[in-house]
Amino acid sequence: MAEHPVSPLAPASTPDLPALAGLRFAAGCTGMRYKGRDDLMLAELASGSTIAAVTTRNSMCSAPVLWCRKQAKQGRARAIVVNAGNANTFTGRDGMRAVERTAKTTAKLLGCGLEEVFVSSTGVIGVKLPVDMIEASLPALVTALDGAATNRAVRAIMTTDTFPKAARRVARIGKTDVTIFGFCKGSGMIAPDMATMLGYVFTDAKLPASVLRSLLRDAAEKSFNCMTVDGDTSTSDTVLLAATGQAKHAAIRSAGDGALEQFRAQLDAVMIELAQLVAKDGEGAQKFVTIKIGGAASAASARKIALAVANSPLVKTAIAAGDANWGRVVMAIGKSGEKANRDRTSVAIGGVTIAHRGDPVPGYDEAPVAKHMAGRDISIEADVGVGRGRATVWTCDLTHGYVDINGSYRS
Amino acid sequence: MAEHPVSPLAPASTPDLPALAGLRFAAGCTGMRYKGRDDLMLAELASGSTIAAVTTRNSMCSAPVLWCRKQAKQGRARAIVVNAGNANTFTGRDGMRAVERTAKTTAKLLGCGLEEVFVSSTGVIGVKLPVDMIEASLPALVTALDGAATNRAVRAIMTTDTFPKAARRVARIGKTDVTIFGFCKGSGMIAPDMATMLGYVFTDAKLPASVLRSLLRDAAEKSFNCMTVDGDTSTSDTVLLAATGQAKHAAIRSAGDGALEQFRAQLDAVMIELAQLVAKDGEGAQKFVTIKIGGAASAASARKIALAVANSPLVKTAIAAGDANWGRVVMAIGKSGEKANRDRTSVAIGGVTIAHRGDPVPGYDEAPVAKHMAGRDISIEADVGVGRGRATVWTCDLTHGYVDINGSYRS
Repeated sequence: MAEHPVSPLAPASTPDLPALAGLRFAAGCTGMRYKGRDDLMLAELASGSTIAAVTTRNSMCSAPVLWCRKQAKQGRARAIVVNAGNANTFTGRDGMRAVERTAKTTAKLLGCGLEEVFVSSTGVIGVKLPVDMIEASLPALVTALDGAATNRAVRAIMTTDTFPKAARRVARIGKTDVTIFGFCKGSGMIAPDMATMLGYVFTDAKLPASVLRSLLRDAAEKSFNCMTVDGDTSTSDTVLLAATGQAKHAAIRSAGDGALEQFRAQLDAVMIELAQLVAKDGEGAQKFVTIKIGGAASAASARKIALAVANSPLVKTAIAAGDANWGRVVMAIGKSGEKANRDRTSVAIGGVTIAHRGDPVPGYDEAPVAKHMAGRDISIEADVGVGRGRATVWTCDLTHGYVDINGSYRS
Repeated sequence: MAEHPVSPLAPASTPDLPALAGLRFAAGCTGMRYKGRDDLMLAELASGSTIAAVTTRNSMCSAPVLWCRKQAKQGRARAIVVNAGNANTFTGRDGMRAVERTAKTTAKLLGCGLEEVFVSSTGVIGVKLPVDMIEASLPALVTALDGAATNRAVRAIMTTDTFPKAARRVARIGKTDVTIFGFCKGSGMIAPDMATMLGYVFTDAKLPASVLRSLLRDAAEKSFNCMTVDGDTSTSDTVLLAATGQAKHAAIRSAGDGALEQFRAQLDAVMIELAQLVAKDGEGAQKFVTIKIGGAASAASARKIALAVANSPLVKTAIAAGDANWGRVVMAIGKSGEKANRDRTSVAIGGVTIAHRGDPVPGYDEAPVAKHMAGRDISIEADVGVGRGRATVWTCDLTHGYVDINGSYRS
């Protein structure tokens, strides 16, 4: 594995994640791929914890994804096990057997039900998972479980990430402060030969699984589903939201409960921050790009258009070169297949309108646009002139670094 | 404009296109963008010639595309005018005015109807077309029209193409030999800041426009619509098929006429050869890639899956590095959104099966695969295990050259 330099878009520091009532972590090294670093994470949740999951729509999804999807239906969780270095994807029947063995060993060690153990794997596709190395490591991890080990867990799930990704917020439910924090990994949809975006968000709030499901689905739509590095959807993408229920607040029975207003906003904020961190660690990324589309037929249509712009290799290479090539933005809007009115379409870069209602703006001031394009933080906005649908999507540029990293040999 | 070296995938030579009864060409230099080379092409067709068009589905399409689409409905053609260096796209109302002026000037010079003149433009988006430079050049081109000037026309439409692209075949209709030849330009969907794939196919056969439309639509589905460089659909893509009707064969009234069997096959062959040449001149291309998908729910579904593989930046960068990263092929199949059965999916590279029905093939022979990946001509095949739909798609790899070329500044 080649080591890559830390992304220039990395934040100055990673927030420390506090201990959370009802939650303990441990991390260790199986040695299955990496040497001298943690590659196995165990999270233990208090009895009565609830959970919800969103997973990849890729039809070639991994055995752990199928497992999480199935177990999330009953909504109870006692443990999450994540290994880094092998995705356990496209591994035939052995794939699900490996997940079951991991879950069984964990359930036995923690004295919980098999269906309360969630498993994720990230790494190379199509190589059988050496599950015995995971099973051999688990007893020591259970012994080491510690409420203060969160920050070690954050790092144990990394693969080709160049920096750890964590976010935290506090929200009030009634008169009680609850904590929401999360961490994730991801750098390309499939890194050098590593795979995937994995995210884990925890709270001490007491929320039924049905409420978690609704909150997570909504937050994912605004965060991870609005972020792209290369448009290549991984086979292993998984985000789990778990609640330990240790906070003392009035019972919440529905996601529509007014007492959740702040919680919902802060959950969105945690997940948006995590999603943006993934784009900032996009393989080879030198610039962070925010694309806002307005005037679309619907919010869903606006997001599709924004993603077409965000995934266009021609737009991304122009950004890498600091070129305000707005013609490519127009092209990408047009190729999206979504409704857009050419003669009412306007485009702005760095806040400067360059094309207005189907026509280039004569003699627009290029100097501030050129200065904006030379920076790290690029803003592209367009109005497609057909309705009121809006969406924001985050991505990064397409650089020589991307070609280098993804052209590395697997072996 | 930076000059780029000739693609290593260029054919050893460009076929000479013969004179065709009822067809004359001329080329000249307007000087609107390029110096010292032709950038304007005029084709004159004999009275009674018929024509059909296929054009881009991009909703931001150029004024010339809208013009060709409209005029093709009546199906008669006397002239085709193509300029290189400016796409006349996203140029507001001036765009259509420029097309109309070009058509009017040409119609007056040739003494034909306005609606019999077809116009294409290729080049930078969002810059007003200096149509006076075209109008000033047209009289000399009309004077120079020559049945033997075909090969000069082939070169006049090039923008960032590193080699000219032409193909020819002979087909028999009844007892009469007819010629089909064509030429095209295209290198990225939008090149450095140039745009587009344009193609022109001619025959001396005598075919009604309704028959041409059917034949062209079918051939385009098997050729240009099965080719991708970067998935970025241009705003100007246009392919015209014109018939001068000078050949003496029995009248053809329907595209289903059995006498067209050979013609249809040879038209397909010309257009497939042209489409492959575009992929071979893909920006920065070092390898030509053929992707065959079988076992899909339908042919359309197979093509969507093949295009998902062909457009995946992760697949393309792996190919650039000579890495047989079949896990990424699996990922791309899965992200296509098309029906595929993970546990029945098989993948072969260079004819060697690497994954069989959802499982990696233990100990497959890596040596021939590595040798294949080191070559110029890459073959990827997959069966997705749900039906009998098949499709073949052509593309190229994603290299540092692509990032360089598309990161060039426009000015």
